Amino acid sequence: MSSISFIGMASVITAGITIAVGAIGPAIGEGRAVASALSAIAQQPDEKNTITRTLFVGLAMIESTAIYCFVVSMILLFANPFWDYVISAAN
Amino acid sequence: MSSISFIGMASVITAGITIAVGAIGPAIGEGRAVASALSAIAQQPDEKNTITRTLFVGLAMIESTAIYCFVVSMILLFANPFWDYVISAAN
Amino acid sequence: MSSISFIGMASVITAGITIAVGAIGPAIGEGRAVASALSAIAQQPDEKNTITRTLFVGLAMIESTAIYCFVVSMILLFANPFWDYVISAAN
Amino acid sequence: MSSISFIGMASVITAGITIAVGAIGPAIGEGRAVASALSAIAQQPDEKNTITRTLFVGLAMIESTAIYCFVVSMILLFANPFWDYVISAAN
Amino acid sequence: MSSISFIGMASVITAGITIAVGAIGPAIGEGRAVASALSAIAQQPDEKNTITRTLFVGLAMIESTAIYCFVVSMILLFANPFWDYVISAAN
Amino acid sequence: MSSISFIGMASVITAGITIAVGAIGPAIGEGRAVASALSAIAQQPDEKNTITRTLFVGLAMIESTAIYCFVVSMILLFANPFWDYVISAAN
Amino acid sequence: MSSISFIGMASVITAGITIAVGAIGPAIGEGRAVASALSAIAQQPDEKNTITRTLFVGLAMIESTAIYCFVVSMILLFANPFWDYVISAAN
Amino acid sequence: MSSISFIGMASVITAGITIAVGAIGPAIGEGRAVASALSAIAQQPDEKNTITRTLFVGLAMIESTAIYCFVVSMILLFANPFWDYVISAAN
Amino acid sequence: MSSISFIGMASVITAGITIAVGAIGPAIGEGRAVASALSAIAQQPDEKNTITRTLFVGLAMIESTAIYCFVVSMILLFANPFWDYVISAAN
Amino acid sequence: MSSISFIGMASVITAGITIAVGAIGPAIGEGRAVASALSAIAQQPDEKNTITRTLFVGLAMIESTAIYCFVVSMILLFANPFWDYVISAAN
Amino acid sequence: MSSISFIGMASVITAGITIAVGAIGPAIGEGRAVASALSAIAQQPDEKNTITRTLFVGLAMIESTAIYCFVVSMILLFANPFWDYVISAAN
Amino acid sequence: MSSISFIGMASVITAGITIAVGAIGPAIGEGRAVASALSAIAQQPDEKNTITRTLFVGLAMIESTAIYCFVVSMILLFANPFWDYVISAAN
Amino acid sequence: MSSISFIGMASVITAGITIAVGAIGPAIGEGRAVASALSAIAQQPDEKNTITRTLFVGLAMIESTAIYCFVVSMILLFANPFWDYVISAAN
Amino acid sequence: MSSISFIGMASVITAGITIAVGAIGPAIGEGRAVASALSAIAQQPDEKNTITRTLFVGLAMIESTAIYCFVVSMILLFANPFWDYVISAAN
Repeated sequence: MSSISFIGMASVITAGITIAVGAIGPAIGEGRAVASALSAIAQQPDEKNTITRTLFVGLAMIESTAIYCFVVSMILLFANPFWDYVISAAN
Repeated sequence: MSSISFIGMASVITAGITIAVGAIGPAIGEGRAVASALSAIAQQPDEKNTITRTLFVGLAMIESTAIYCFVVSMILLFANPFWDYVISAAN
Repeated sequence: MSSISFIGMASVITAGITIAVGAIGPAIGEGRAVASALSAIAQQPDEKNTITRTLFVGLAMIESTAIYCFVVSMILLFANPFWDYVISAAN
Repeated sequence: MSSISFIGMASVITAGITIAVGAIGPAIGEGRAVASALSAIAQQPDEKNTITRTLFVGLAMIESTAIYCFVVSMILLFANPFWDYVISAAN
Repeated sequence: MSSISFIGMASVITAGITIAVGAIGPAIGEGRAVASALSAIAQQPDEKNTITRTLFVGLAMIESTAIYCFVVSMILLFANPFWDYVISAAN
Repeated sequence: MSSISFIGMASVITAGITIAVGAIGPAIGEGRAVASALSAIAQQPDEKNTITRTLFVGLAMIESTAIYCFVVSMILLFANPFWDYVISAAN
Repeated sequence: MSSISFIGMASVITAGITIAVGAIGPAIGEGRAVASALSAIAQQPDEKNTITRTLFVGLAMIESTAIYCFVVSMILLFANPFWDYVISAAN
Repeated sequence: MSSISFIGMASVITAGITIAVGAIGPAIGEGRAVASALSAIAQQPDEKNTITRTLFVGLAMIESTAIYCFVVSMILLFANPFWDYVISAAN
Repeated sequence: MSSISFIGMASVITAGITIAVGAIGPAIGEGRAVASALSAIAQQPDEKNTITRTLFVGLAMIESTAIYCFVVSMILLFANPFWDYVISAAN
Repeated sequence: MSSISFIGMASVITAGITIAVGAIGPAIGEGRAVASALSAIAQQPDEKNTITRTLFVGLAMIESTAIYCFVVSMILLFANPFWDYVISAAN
Repeated sequence: MSSISFIGMASVITAGITIAVGAIGPAIGEGRAVASALSAIAQQPDEKNTITRTLFVGLAMIESTAIYCFVVSMILLFANPFWDYVISAAN
Repeated sequence: MSSISFIGMASVITAGITIAVGAIGPAIGEGRAVASALSAIAQQPDEKNTITRTLFVGLAMIESTAIYCFVVSMILLFANPFWDYVISAAN
Repeated sequence: MSSISFIGMASVITAGITIAVGAIGPAIGEGRAVASALSAIAQQPDEKNTITRTLFVGLAMIESTAIYCFVVSMILLFANPFWDYVISAAN
Repeated sequence: MSSISFIGMASVITAGITIAVGAIGPAIGEGRAVASALSAIAQQPDEKNTITRTLFVGLAMIESTAIYCFVVSMILLFANPFWDYVISAAN
């Protein structure tokens, strides 16, 4: 079994696991933030502009951790330096 | 056992695990957000437009993490660069 | 042991695990949303139309993650590109 | 050890695990929804028709994820395309 | 070691695990529903008919997921298509 | 090592695990239901007949999942079709 | 290594694990029920007869799941049909 | 490596694990019951006789599951039928 | 590798694990009971004698499960029948 | 199998796992902080400037732990000293 | 590899794991008891002597489970009967 | 396979795991501290200077544990004494 | 591979794991105790001397379990009787 | 594979795991203590000096467990007695 199999297999598995595991935290964190925003609006409707603006900044921060995972997952699939090396070595 | 078996097997398993694990977080997070929205409507019916609009933006953000997982799962099944390489190498 | 065994075995196992694991999150999330809707109706009966409409939109969003898993599970069983390849290679 | 053993063994194990794991989420989610419905009826008896109707729609949605698992489990036992292939190949 | 050993062993183990794991969720869900029903009766005795009727419908829904598991377990023990095949192949 | 060893070993282990794991859920669920019943009696002594009757029906439903596990465990020990086959094949 | 070793080893391990794992659920469930009974007596001393009677019935139900495990454990140690077979086969 | 090693090793390990795992549930359950009893006494000192009597009956029930585990552990160490057989077979 | 190594290694490992795992439950249970006793004294100082007496009886019950584990651990280290046998067999 | 395969495979897997696991904590922590900020604004709208400023400083601190993980992940992919060594040794 | 390696390795690993795992429960239990004592003093300063005395007795009971683990760990390191035997056998 | 592969692989994997696992605790702890600070500001705006100053000291303490992990991770990547030794030994 | 490798490797791994795992419990327990002490001071400032004195005694008790782990870890690193034996045996 | 590989690999992995796992507890414990301190200041501003002083003593105690882990990790990397021995033995 060649290096190609091992590096390829590891890349496929890791690309999937990275985004799958990396989606759990942000999704739960965003759910919590949204839930809290909705309670806050219900409690203090006059501040809904401040609340939604703060919410969106917060969601962007939380989403950034999901995006880090997505970026790494895409790099592993389409710009993988280890795969590129073993392919060029195989040819 | 050839590279085709290993890369193929890893792709099949990862495609499924990615979306399966990646669905847990968003589903729970959305459940929390919807539950909070319903309480908020019951508590402050006059703000139901703001609440549902904020809810839908929030759900879209949370759903995005599930969609990242679905995209990676589809790439692994139908546009897998590692599989394409080993197939072209096998022919 | 041929590629057919490996790819087939992985497909069978993954098809089941995908929908089994993928059903946990949506079921719990929907349970939470429904529970919250019922409390909201009990608390604010006059808004029951808004509450049930918001509930159904929310349930649809949550159900979508279960459906992603079901779709991947069905693809793995009946439109599996890796299985199709090894079958055509075996003939 | 032939392909028949491997595919058969994987199908048996997966059929059971799918429905077993897939039953945890819906059962807990439905328990939560029913518990909430009963509290809601105790709190607001006048709305018991709306509450039970909403409950049944919600239970149907939650049950659907259990039914996805049961369907996949039955397919694996009685309409398994991988098993059919290896049987026809063995004859 | 023949196919009979493997398929038989997998069937035995899966039959037990299926019902064992599948009993956890329904038992906990039903416990929650019953607990909630008893609180509801204590809180609103006049609605005890509605409450017990709703409880029994809910318990039936929750029990259904346990019954799916029991059915699969019984199929694996007494109407197992994979076992039937390897037995007929062995004779 | 013969089929007898494998099937026998699997049956012994599964018979025990089935009832052991299957006892966790019902025991906890019943504990919750009983605890709730006692609180309900303390809160509303006049309804103690209704409460205990509802409790016993609920306990019977929850106990049923433990009994499914016990039945499967007994079948595996004393009416195991796989063991019967390998014994008859060995003689 | 003979069948005797395997069947014997599996029986020893399973006998212990069965009662050990099977004791967790009932012990916690009974603890909860007793705790609730004591609170109920403190809250409503006039109903202490009803409460203790209901408690004992409930404890008996919960204990029954521990007893199922103990029975299976004893069967595996002293009336194990698989061990009896391999012993009689060895002599 | 002889049967003696395997049976002996399994007995040693199982004897310890049985009582170790089996002590977790009862200890936590008893802690809960005692804690509840103390709160109940503080809340309703006049019923301290009923409370302590009910507590001791409850503790006896919970302790019984720990004693089942201890009994099985002692049987495995000092009256182990599998060990007795292999010892008598070895002499 | 002789029986002495296996039995000895298993005894060493089990002796440690037994008391380590067996100490978790009692320590947490006793912590809970003590915490509850202190709250009860703060709430009802006049009953401090009853409370501490009940506490000590309860702690003794909980400690007993830790002592079972310690006894088994000591037996495995210093009065291990399996070790005695293999030692006498080796000489 | 050469060092290149091992070092490459380990780098691929670790790069993904690092950011995936490292995203869970920050995402949940940020979700909690944002949720708390929104409640605080609803409770004390006059202090919204102080609250959002404190929130952003806090989010930056929490995000820093995610960025440590991202940096290590990028180093492993694009500036891996171990990979550089084995590549230069291979040429 | 000789018995010395196996027994020695097992003793080293077990000595560490025993005290490491055995420290978790007591530390958490003591933390809980101390926390409760401090709340109790804040609530009822006049009873601080009774509270601290009860606390210290309780801490001693909880600490005893940690000390059992420490004793076993020390025995395994410095008075290990299995190690003594294999050393004397090796000389 | 040489020492270089083993030491290199272990360093790569450990460098990633160290910072990934080490980021979970600090991120959650900081989230909790920030959340509490925001509630405290909302509750007592006059003390916002004291609160933010205490918060920043606390965050620095918590962040220190993340920095320990980052330092170890960097040492493993760029100043690894074991890697330096095996490299110098290989040349 | 000699005894030196095995004993040395086991000592290295155990020394680290012992203190790492053994630090979790005390850190969480102390966090709880400190948190409770701060609440108690805020609630009853006049008793701050009693509270801090009780806190420090409690922290010392909790810290003692961490110190047991540290001692065992240091013994394994610098006064390891098993390592001393194999080293003296090797020379 | 020589002792150098094994001891080196174990040291690298353990050094990382020790500080990574050992950082979880202190970070969470400190987060809890800081959070409680901030609430206490908000509740009782006049006692802020006592509160912050008690907080810092508590944080120092909690941090000590993280520092034990860091010390062991540094010893394993830079003053490892097992590594020193195998290096001196190799030269």
